[in-house]
Amino acid sequence: MALYVQKFGGTSVGSIDRIQNVARRVAKTREQGHDVIVVVSAMSGETDRLLGLGRNLSGRPAEREMDVLVASGEQVSAALTCIALNEMGVKAISLLGHQARIETDNVFTKARITRVDDQRVRKALADGCVVVVAGFQGMDSEGNITTLGRGGSDTSAVAIAAATRADVCEIYTDVEGVFTADPNVCPSARKVDRICYEEMLELAALGAKVLQIRSVELAMKYAVPIHVRSTFSDAEGTMVTGEDEALESVVVAGVTSDKKAAKVTVRNVPDQPGVCAGIFEPLAEANVTVDMIIQNVATDGTTDLTFTVSRDDLTRMRDIADDLVKRIGASDVTIDDDVVKVSIVGLGMRSHAGVAAKMFRLLADEGINIEAISTSEIKTSCLIRAKYAELAVRVLHDGFGLGLAR
Amino acid sequence: MALYVQKFGGTSVGSIDRIQNVARRVAKTREQGHDVIVVVSAMSGETDRLLGLGRNLSGRPAEREMDVLVASGEQVSAALTCIALNEMGVKAISLLGHQARIETDNVFTKARITRVDDQRVRKALADGCVVVVAGFQGMDSEGNITTLGRGGSDTSAVAIAAATRADVCEIYTDVEGVFTADPNVCPSARKVDRICYEEMLELAALGAKVLQIRSVELAMKYAVPIHVRSTFSDAEGTMVTGEDEALESVVVAGVTSDKKAAKVTVRNVPDQPGVCAGIFEPLAEANVTVDMIIQNVATDGTTDLTFTVSRDDLTRMRDIADDLVKRIGASDVTIDDDVVKVSIVGLGMRSHAGVAAKMFRLLADEGINIEAISTSEIKTSCLIRAKYAELAVRVLHDGFGLGLAR
Repeated sequence: MALYVQKFGGTSVGSIDRIQNVARRVAKTREQGHDVIVVVSAMSGETDRLLGLGRNLSGRPAEREMDVLVASGEQVSAALTCIALNEMGVKAISLLGHQARIETDNVFTKARITRVDDQRVRKALADGCVVVVAGFQGMDSEGNITTLGRGGSDTSAVAIAAATRADVCEIYTDVEGVFTADPNVCPSARKVDRICYEEMLELAALGAKVLQIRSVELAMKYAVPIHVRSTFSDAEGTMVTGEDEALESVVVAGVTSDKKAAKVTVRNVPDQPGVCAGIFEPLAEANVTVDMIIQNVATDGTTDLTFTVSRDDLTRMRDIADDLVKRIGASDVTIDDDVVKVSIVGLGMRSHAGVAAKMFRLLADEGINIEAISTSEIKTSCLIRAKYAELAVRVLHDGFGLGLAR
Repeated sequence: MALYVQKFGGTSVGSIDRIQNVARRVAKTREQGHDVIVVVSAMSGETDRLLGLGRNLSGRPAEREMDVLVASGEQVSAALTCIALNEMGVKAISLLGHQARIETDNVFTKARITRVDDQRVRKALADGCVVVVAGFQGMDSEGNITTLGRGGSDTSAVAIAAATRADVCEIYTDVEGVFTADPNVCPSARKVDRICYEEMLELAALGAKVLQIRSVELAMKYAVPIHVRSTFSDAEGTMVTGEDEALESVVVAGVTSDKKAAKVTVRNVPDQPGVCAGIFEPLAEANVTVDMIIQNVATDGTTDLTFTVSRDDLTRMRDIADDLVKRIGASDVTIDDDVVKVSIVGLGMRSHAGVAAKMFRLLADEGINIEAISTSEIKTSCLIRAKYAELAVRVLHDGFGLGLAR
């Protein structure tokens, strides 16, 4: 007897029929004698509907209240999933974030899980119940409802799997697994059978929408095996595991593009100690997530500083931009959201030279200009004009031979 | 400076525009220097939509999960109301049932409030916030979400008003107050300026949809003055207060009809001790609420027993009916839901003779047959064929002179 955590996304619980389908799948696992904890997202479209209601009332609605608002979406799908399970004769109980004791910090709309107290969940399992946990939500130390940011249900699932020492965390989604590139963009993209946390982390961070990045971090930290698979088929998906369990590493595991980036350039920044902190501290305070940061060598005692932020944070970025420029004595700031970040990811990069150079060459051969570069041990990213996004992904995917069997 | 509790029903928060209207009203009270606790229902139609989702999945969905499901409706409107208030520059915070510490028993779908711990609410008021509480919901001693039954938001509001010793509990609704009869049925119906708890209790119990009955009981117990008024006008509504504060009592204060009754007749019940308990104990266990009970004198050692139940409970009633008949040795049971209960209510009945007789005469003159009668100190009810409901209300209303100024 094993303990399964099974997470179902919004599309998987998007209608009454689909909820019944989810319940059948859970019931099947239960029939095989396993314990099951189910984590559900809101029915597809519901989160956007709720966000729309809030935004109709205010251009900048209070984030605490937005969390109360959207958390209702997962509450509904958790209850409905239990009702469907009961109807099939499977004992089930729903637990909301605060009931499942998913404790978070108090950063509303993008809270981080600090602790999961699994007592209540364990008790329900011991009572013979399937436990259906509302994903995406938690509770801060004062009992306020918090949410974990888009895709947060993945993180809920992995956190619960870690706390309960589940044997596997299955992430059911509307695709069959992790692909070498987005199949909609790149027809030769293939499903990957196994991938290691590090690679998945870079892919997730770069906008491969399969898993929320924090869920992968958490899975890596607690060594929770993740199985990404389709709700609509019985085929095996992609296992995300530790490096040692993954197959022989390849140079490049996947190619991805991130259309959520916006480029911010601050010009004529005085080249003196503390000026960088003077820029990025206010951004952190305003909860603006910064990704790439590029600083050129100074000329005439000033330098230009470029960084990328998520387009979701652009309103907040614009709010503080002018004040920022004034305070640090820069000349001006420009915000450009017509860019896209394409990246290649692979453990093999650590030991193979020339991978980045090959990437730049492949892009150059198509006449694509590179506006910024950032690298990590296992990925290389380039910022390019948005219109080249799909072309760049295809060129890199096929240029690195990802279409062939791995 | 006074403390107001202002409760807004589903129609009052039924759209973004209407929520803004509610926020303006709350803001106005706040500007006058008062503290305000707002209690909101779900947006109109939302509770039914949610119930529909649950019932699509199961003919008899688990009540615990139905409560989790429908409680999301008030959660949404509470958050939206806060967002609207913030947008108007009014500091506001939403509290769900469990956050506002509205403690209930564990009878899902119709829980009763056992205690309100007002610490969290008081703290928020002290912080200068308008507190927006999600109505209709609470939490049992194990932390499960419970709901208070249809119209339960009224009870939430009164319970909070009692716990916080509010100066008044304003119930905003889509009518202008309490009427002598349903104006849709009886054109000569008038708004009542003042009515006492006891009369309101009978009127509420009898289906005058203005206030949930338990809210009136609670208001009477804790002497909370209720002001029933319209969300859509500034006119004074109806004050519901203690008897001593009410105006000189009249013989009949109002006429009402209850279309939610169904008549159950158990035939040839053995006339022996314990048989009544044998019928009504299983009903209580099945959570079937019984209203009128009529037992005739026994002939040949058996008797017929008639009682009314709410049509909402008919499925549960039918489930246990056959087993009931068998166990007590009765011959059979018939369920008739083509009936309606019309009632007259008034404190004056206590001291005026002949009120019931006049009621029977007025009905008889219209050829309406009376199938069962029940009386209390301040009301007389008759069960009649459903088709006569409106006619009976008009005849009684005008026959007792209610159309004239009181």
